[in-house]
Amino acid sequence: MSVANQVIIFGASGDLTARKLIPALASLAQKKKPAGGFSVIGCARRPKTDEQFRAELREAMPAELKEAFDVLAPSLFYLATDVSSAQDVEALKQKLDALPGADGGRLFYLSLKPELFGPTVEKLGAGGMIKFVESTGAGEEKAFRRVLIEKPFGHNLESAIQLNQELHKWLREGQIYRIDHYLGKETVQNLLGLRFHNAIFEPLWNQVHVELVQITVAEDLGMESGRGGYYDSTGALRDMLQNHMLQILAFIAMEPPSSLDAAAVRSQKINLLRSLRAPARDEMAENAVRAQYSAGSVNGKNVPGYREEEGIARDSQTESFIAVRAEIDSWRWAGVPFLLRHGKRLEKKFTEVQVQFRMPPLQLFNKPEGLSDDEFRLKLRSGELCQIRPNVLTLSIQPREAISLSFGVKTPGNTMVMAPTKMSFDYRDKFGAQTAPAYERLLLDALIGDPTLFLHGEEIEASWKFADSIMRSFAEGVPALESYPAGSAGPETANRLFHGCEGGWTRG
Amino acid sequence: MSVANQVIIFGASGDLTARKLIPALASLAQKKKPAGGFSVIGCARRPKTDEQFRAELREAMPAELKEAFDVLAPSLFYLATDVSSAQDVEALKQKLDALPGADGGRLFYLSLKPELFGPTVEKLGAGGMIKFVESTGAGEEKAFRRVLIEKPFGHNLESAIQLNQELHKWLREGQIYRIDHYLGKETVQNLLGLRFHNAIFEPLWNQVHVELVQITVAEDLGMESGRGGYYDSTGALRDMLQNHMLQILAFIAMEPPSSLDAAAVRSQKINLLRSLRAPARDEMAENAVRAQYSAGSVNGKNVPGYREEEGIARDSQTESFIAVRAEIDSWRWAGVPFLLRHGKRLEKKFTEVQVQFRMPPLQLFNKPEGLSDDEFRLKLRSGELCQIRPNVLTLSIQPREAISLSFGVKTPGNTMVMAPTKMSFDYRDKFGAQTAPAYERLLLDALIGDPTLFLHGEEIEASWKFADSIMRSFAEGVPALESYPAGSAGPETANRLFHGCEGGWTRG
Repeated sequence: MSVANQVIIFGASGDLTARKLIPALASLAQKKKPAGGFSVIGCARRPKTDEQFRAELREAMPAELKEAFDVLAPSLFYLATDVSSAQDVEALKQKLDALPGADGGRLFYLSLKPELFGPTVEKLGAGGMIKFVESTGAGEEKAFRRVLIEKPFGHNLESAIQLNQELHKWLREGQIYRIDHYLGKETVQNLLGLRFHNAIFEPLWNQVHVELVQITVAEDLGMESGRGGYYDSTGALRDMLQNHMLQILAFIAMEPPSSLDAAAVRSQKINLLRSLRAPARDEMAENAVRAQYSAGSVNGKNVPGYREEEGIARDSQTESFIAVRAEIDSWRWAGVPFLLRHGKRLEKKFTEVQVQFRMPPLQLFNKPEGLSDDEFRLKLRSGELCQIRPNVLTLSIQPREAISLSFGVKTPGNTMVMAPTKMSFDYRDKFGAQTAPAYERLLLDALIGDPTLFLHGEEIEASWKFADSIMRSFAEGVPALESYPAGSAGPETANRLFHGCEGGWTRG
Repeated sequence: MSVANQVIIFGASGDLTARKLIPALASLAQKKKPAGGFSVIGCARRPKTDEQFRAELREAMPAELKEAFDVLAPSLFYLATDVSSAQDVEALKQKLDALPGADGGRLFYLSLKPELFGPTVEKLGAGGMIKFVESTGAGEEKAFRRVLIEKPFGHNLESAIQLNQELHKWLREGQIYRIDHYLGKETVQNLLGLRFHNAIFEPLWNQVHVELVQITVAEDLGMESGRGGYYDSTGALRDMLQNHMLQILAFIAMEPPSSLDAAAVRSQKINLLRSLRAPARDEMAENAVRAQYSAGSVNGKNVPGYREEEGIARDSQTESFIAVRAEIDSWRWAGVPFLLRHGKRLEKKFTEVQVQFRMPPLQLFNKPEGLSDDEFRLKLRSGELCQIRPNVLTLSIQPREAISLSFGVKTPGNTMVMAPTKMSFDYRDKFGAQTAPAYERLLLDALIGDPTLFLHGEEIEASWKFADSIMRSFAEGVPALESYPAGSAGPETANRLFHGCEGGWTRG
């Protein structure tokens, strides 16, 4: 892996640059600058000198990062650039060739509106700025060119395919770094470690032993900070489920990779996402729920309903809550429901995965007094005697990063009655507060050329294929749009997704 | 199950009667006396009136039990009895027939020296006191006769077989209650619950996933309270390993029973104990360790060596420490070492089972920086790179009653380095201090006729068969008798039992 010597930021006057990119680069520069020179070039339309650019950024830097920033500052440059102008692109090329690190690798960071991804790559390609150079692998050329883009990667399957085509006209897949900041979180990476460093989970991790898996991303926020307009054109499915949640699902359900190399990990994720199956059209009514929040109270504060929020159409059909029962067509997972749920304005904010294991094949315990063996068996079979599912592995991702395993233990006394209990592990208790923010981790990976935690184009397309079939059904009004009070756990009807299985949605 | 209406205690002037039996009976009587009358008849050689008997026992009762004792007292009776006299047995019979509960079931508690078990049963049988009446099962006769005896059940296989023959001359197996107070402990019963109420352990509980199992009963005591004489004729193997430890092993390793009925549970334990294999004679030197403690310091106190203790022969060859590597000839466990260890005067008192799982089949994590995939693989294969076994399930039985599972988690940061951690469950945290003492639980089971937690004659014989082959080797001086300082973790050489496996003995 080779480290980039030049980082070119398009959209450098944007919020993200000052808030995330420059702090991350400063923190990295303070640790170690790459050999062979290092430059960070900000590009945007507004004219500005290098000094102005540096002064503005220093101003925006939090106090604890000023020192690190001062290490980075001499490497910061600015060029007023309209990327749609061939002349400006040529000027950028000449500036880059004159700055430190000109002979090394370059990382183009497209902090732009999604509709500009394709056109910008087109201009850079036509201007000879991004030749076909693999950014990883053996025999890698030193003067590599990498392009990093932010989500959304399309707004449906068709537009995602189109974007990939625009990118692939000038870039090989290995040059493209599609960032999902969720994957920079330690917890998501921990899923790999937990599953594949411990030999005890994998033998249980299949349809023989798992009854169902549920994944929840619950938010208590609504349409704060003027998000309404954007959100109403997006909705819960596209804003969260199609990307972040399917990524979590992929890490939870993928087959073991042959190594931790990007190629090995991503190809297993692609396999998994391709085998993911949305409910068939006829099953959609019972296997999906969409809803909007009505006025209610969150954390003791009264809040308006979704359609009363700023920027939301009064007759909006956009969902602020979605729950879907998906399945995975694989030998490992066939028949196991994967229940996905996400909503805004719920009672609290948490992200959690629950792997619910099956009951023991033979029920020996908790026989009520006075019941014969035969009566016990009959009552169990009829469902009249409800037995608690003793084994659930809970992977908490937010706000606590924790693992807990519930199981049954014998209650003290003369009878064989079992009680549910659990044991837990909290990452913070062991390792203290997390150090590297997700952005810094991912930016470092892009600089050194490790695409493991970035999204492959085929992952994007497989995820959109899944989302598309749900969107088509939503567009036809199936299932009907429901409502839930802000501050609740979501619509009651979401529990219908458990049909045929025991249990209900976790409350976090 | 029918409750006994009369309890006959032979050896009623002994310590056990006042200290354990009467408190347990008082506590039970306070809760509920059986329908149809209830009497407890103490028998011993010394002449005594009922009133004297009651007064002596009341005197011995701890303050918190005096009230319960007063409930029991009117049901207490005494008869001076020499059980070797047919006349006395006839007198006892007449007394029992005249006391409350005469028409009901009877439990004979033989609190006698082991050499009196056979002769006493012979006299009771010849006197018509214990007819063949099954004490459990459908169509059970109300006037059942049960006989309860305490360990030791023989001192080797031959004597155990002989004892069983003496008992079986007059009693069916279902009438015999052989007590091992270890099985009255909640923790041992918890093993059943943990294994068979939770579906996640059983799929891992076999040679595919388990690398080894170790069971330790460590004691810090030596030959206090004049135990030396008895102990020197017994030793660690017979005092602890052959009985209590093999019982724990049976609960850990047995196949799932078809129900929790005594017959189902005990027949699986018998199966397991029969499939237990001691090291072959030629392997004994490397698979067993025997040792005596030398002078040392325990809990800050200087103590003498084993041969300096009171009642111990100066040239004693009796082991105060034993460790054995056993195997189980079953489809489930073939090839998995079961390491058993017990010793006196060790650094601390604890009883613990550790189930150590295998490494993941493919090592993805903890690759040292700068190593290629091929180099990593070679170093792993050669054993040059030591990887910690991440998954161990620890079942603590004493002094804490707890379960803990160790596993590996990713350390925060950019590299995929895993660190060992664990999660735990403590019974006391959940249920508070344990209520029913082991003795009370077992006595209640004998009164109501549940033999699940009592030893079947065939378990005894299978356990002695295992112990006999070790004793024979010891008698031939193989392995050689070693020594360890009092207050240590035992002889260092005990670690040789891990040959071919990773890990070492737990320190509790």
